[in-house]
Amino acid sequence: MTTNKQITLEVRPAGFPKESDFRLVEAPVPTPGPGQFLVQSLYLSVDPYMRGRMNAAKSYAPPVELGGVMVGGVVGQVVESHHPRFAAGETVEGYFGWQQYALSDGVGARKVDPSLAPISTALGVLGMPALTAYFGLLEIGKPQPGETVVVSGAAGAVGSLVGQIAKIQGCRVVGIAGTDEKARYVVEELGFDSAFNYKSARNYRAKLKTLCPQGIDVYFDNVGGAITDAVIPLLNVRARLVICGQISQYNLERPEMGPRWLWALIVKQARAEGFLVFQFADRFEEGIRQMAQWLKEGKLKYRENIIEGLENAPRAFIGMLKGENIGKQLVKVADA
Amino acid sequence: MTTNKQITLEVRPAGFPKESDFRLVEAPVPTPGPGQFLVQSLYLSVDPYMRGRMNAAKSYAPPVELGGVMVGGVVGQVVESHHPRFAAGETVEGYFGWQQYALSDGVGARKVDPSLAPISTALGVLGMPALTAYFGLLEIGKPQPGETVVVSGAAGAVGSLVGQIAKIQGCRVVGIAGTDEKARYVVEELGFDSAFNYKSARNYRAKLKTLCPQGIDVYFDNVGGAITDAVIPLLNVRARLVICGQISQYNLERPEMGPRWLWALIVKQARAEGFLVFQFADRFEEGIRQMAQWLKEGKLKYRENIIEGLENAPRAFIGMLKGENIGKQLVKVADA
Repeated sequence: MTTNKQITLEVRPAGFPKESDFRLVEAPVPTPGPGQFLVQSLYLSVDPYMRGRMNAAKSYAPPVELGGVMVGGVVGQVVESHHPRFAAGETVEGYFGWQQYALSDGVGARKVDPSLAPISTALGVLGMPALTAYFGLLEIGKPQPGETVVVSGAAGAVGSLVGQIAKIQGCRVVGIAGTDEKARYVVEELGFDSAFNYKSARNYRAKLKTLCPQGIDVYFDNVGGAITDAVIPLLNVRARLVICGQISQYNLERPEMGPRWLWALIVKQARAEGFLVFQFADRFEEGIRQMAQWLKEGKLKYRENIIEGLENAPRAFIGMLKGENIGKQLVKVADA
Repeated sequence: MTTNKQITLEVRPAGFPKESDFRLVEAPVPTPGPGQFLVQSLYLSVDPYMRGRMNAAKSYAPPVELGGVMVGGVVGQVVESHHPRFAAGETVEGYFGWQQYALSDGVGARKVDPSLAPISTALGVLGMPALTAYFGLLEIGKPQPGETVVVSGAAGAVGSLVGQIAKIQGCRVVGIAGTDEKARYVVEELGFDSAFNYKSARNYRAKLKTLCPQGIDVYFDNVGGAITDAVIPLLNVRARLVICGQISQYNLERPEMGPRWLWALIVKQARAEGFLVFQFADRFEEGIRQMAQWLKEGKLKYRENIIEGLENAPRAFIGMLKGENIGKQLVKVADA
């Protein structure tokens, strides 16, 4: 424990990120000062939002600096602490970044109860993707029993939970995914009513029309682009579009043009609303408690895809952007 | 009173309507049966929504049949009545269509109090455009004092009221209009804080940025297209887009493509919501009462543009679609 391996951002990608946009560097392991603790990373999360942080443009959060450590959620273990709330040996989750060791003053960090579930779930079914699915669907989408909910990115960390929560609410759930295997997974393992692989569908709209004979009441959008365009004509009156992610647009070298459909929101008296999970921060405990309860009751299933080694984080991240994973993509950095 | 002149839809327009898409016909004046009344049209309204009714495509309301009388709001006088609630001589407003005489069973009709204001206002500042502005802005836009409200189609029947209601709410109001005269009108006569003529602005976004130094909290959209695109980058966190109309799109021969910006709703945690005034039908009385009160207090100003003669309704309608009018465009069909 003398050096701290880190993955830094070397080049701001134009279009799809490449492994050469990142760099593996070594720094000294820092020493916690008063009110700080040192955490060793065990698992790190790779998520679509990180693509936005690689751009120079101002967004809801500052970009990662060139040469700076990549941002990201991490589950780790406290090694040394001068913080009143976190003790050495405890498991914690926070935005510690793509590195082996990080200092924290506790802001944005929370303790993880290892008796509840494997600690890696603090980055998935009991972590940020879960809260995103839970609050986005229930608070923005407001699904009612019997309504039809369509989820894009259905086999991903968020989408797979959205569909299961919608089933718990008594909805009919249709998933859109990027491989046949994913479409089978969400139906056969997760209990969605139906799903299709958009990459082999010639006409998304015709396919959706077949699978949603009662129209679409809630659309939970992780993807955007032509998939979202196909949903619009099928919206029911007072439909809700939960705009969670637009992964189809993040890696374009030039902005994509699409058909204008705001008029459809008028005709259907419909609402499209974007959100960030942080806007529900004061209810995170409630969200995690409910997800843990459903997990315990066997109502939620999840899958994790784990790549070993911090040095493979860029590859895991790029693979996630390409849709190679089913469920939550993680990088294992060290053994507990 | 033996013949009833009517304007019928002759051809479904491709793109911009032409006068030859309509036809002036004569029919016998109908006789009211039990529970019906006969109304003579005095003023008829031409509104953007009518363009949608000319298309064959299903929408929130059925299309006008080919050869059928054009739909539209009318203020008229009851000539003969077998209806328990409406008496001969009373002034009424309803969807009586582009014709001199109409039968009604009272559905969708309401009495107009001629002592309140000139009866033509029942189609404007005390009618459907007013209710659209009132409920759209207050219930969908939810403007707060000090916020910046931007209105497109600012000098139109709806936009001119939206801006004034926003001023009453204590907002900063910026109008977008299609002539210098309109831009001057909404500032100098209606009290908007500023406005610009988009047709002479090279860069809408730069212009808006100058006029909205605190960003945009509420955007009331009557126009759509490139004007709306320019608003998006200036939205504040938790901004509301009230999608009321998309007049820039109604007369296109081929659907227009535009930049995709759903991602901006995520980053800004913003909401775009379409509405139809009818969804507030159970509160129409409240809306009219409040508008009449503000009118009486001198807080609302309005302008009417009146063309004489039923035969000129198509020309008035086409002129309105082209933005030739300031304020409410009406057709005077007969003297009271």
